[in-house]
Amino acid sequence: MTQKKVAVILSGCGVYDGAEIHESVITLLRLDQRGAKVQCFAPNIAQHHVINHLTGEEMPESRNVLVESARIARGDIKDISEANVEEFDALIVPGGFGAAKNLSNFAFKGTECAVQPEVLALAEAFAEAAKPIGLMCISPAIAAKIYGPGVICTIGKDADTAAAISKMGGEHKECDVSEIVEDSARKLVSTPAYMLANSISEAASGINKMVDRVLELTQQE
Amino acid sequence: MTQKKVAVILSGCGVYDGAEIHESVITLLRLDQRGAKVQCFAPNIAQHHVINHLTGEEMPESRNVLVESARIARGDIKDISEANVEEFDALIVPGGFGAAKNLSNFAFKGTECAVQPEVLALAEAFAEAAKPIGLMCISPAIAAKIYGPGVICTIGKDADTAAAISKMGGEHKECDVSEIVEDSARKLVSTPAYMLANSISEAASGINKMVDRVLELTQQE
Repeated sequence: MTQKKVAVILSGCGVYDGAEIHESVITLLRLDQRGAKVQCFAPNIAQHHVINHLTGEEMPESRNVLVESARIARGDIKDISEANVEEFDALIVPGGFGAAKNLSNFAFKGTECAVQPEVLALAEAFAEAAKPIGLMCISPAIAAKIYGPGVICTIGKDADTAAAISKMGGEHKECDVSEIVEDSARKLVSTPAYMLANSISEAASGINKMVDRVLELTQQE
Repeated sequence: MTQKKVAVILSGCGVYDGAEIHESVITLLRLDQRGAKVQCFAPNIAQHHVINHLTGEEMPESRNVLVESARIARGDIKDISEANVEEFDALIVPGGFGAAKNLSNFAFKGTECAVQPEVLALAEAFAEAAKPIGLMCISPAIAAKIYGPGVICTIGKDADTAAAISKMGGEHKECDVSEIVEDSARKLVSTPAYMLANSISEAASGINKMVDRVLELTQQE
């Protein structure tokens, strides 16, 4: 079996204004444990805002999504504009509010949201190439924007978010934190992670299953 | 067996100016998987500096160690001044330059370093209470400041850092990334983590072993 190459899109560094750190690290760990080669990417744009993670309050400063994402990647990260779908077998997008504030504006616009153009273009390219995509936590909120109507995904059990996904054309399936939902036709695998997890090991249970399934799907023609 | 309570000291959020994120998350994950209850702490002080993790250059801004550490802890973190050794069974300190720049000034002063007073007081309290401490990556550089001369620890195989530890009175033992060094008399367990790791799963191999051993040592009288 040749080594699988997986692109991971980060959206900053911290659950309230960027990529959820636990989800991101668990993803990188599982991919490495399974022998996959990882390249992290992030858009080179300003964060929507900066949240003090101790108080929950907005801070009067500006941070860059690529620069902050580099913290999670220990510097080994590239501008998403450099990403080429042909170099990879799969794509995974961790959650955190960064997915809904920086990679898209779902946190503010709901069903009227738009996905950041470079993120959308890359995800669409994986979908068109029939290469698997793994989404977790809130990131499946953009599934319908990537795949169009009928895409099957989960954000867990949050009724309002599930309704928003349905309104955008997605088919939401409820899912426990330790489980995954798969759209076999589209090779999309999603898991609730911290949309439901009460602990880091709960989050890891579903994320590990999702990573493993995404890697399995890279074997299928 | 009663649930073990473990204090984790973070030093910011990012390998070059704070706590190493992978080491911190792997520690939290393993502790949770083993059924331990975790409380994160950090000193409420300014970071020594802020490093752009994409370029490696210093950034002209100021960040607070407790506020940035809160990103790794998803907000569930306390000022280290509130930490009471009597409430915990063990202490673990992840690495990253934050351990050598914020929790101490080892990165700048070498063998003449001082440990941040609240961090030193808490670590000394665990040592005096004969409660186990786990150190990883560069954080064992402060072991001799906590325990005094003769303490046995590892930072892996870096000759200069090992020599500095020896000069401060410690007894350095070389160690592979997947292994641990234990000072049984002092209940100190250390592992090289990213001082040696070439991948996140290599780092996890030693950290998991260290966490497991620290939890075992909480059973010993």
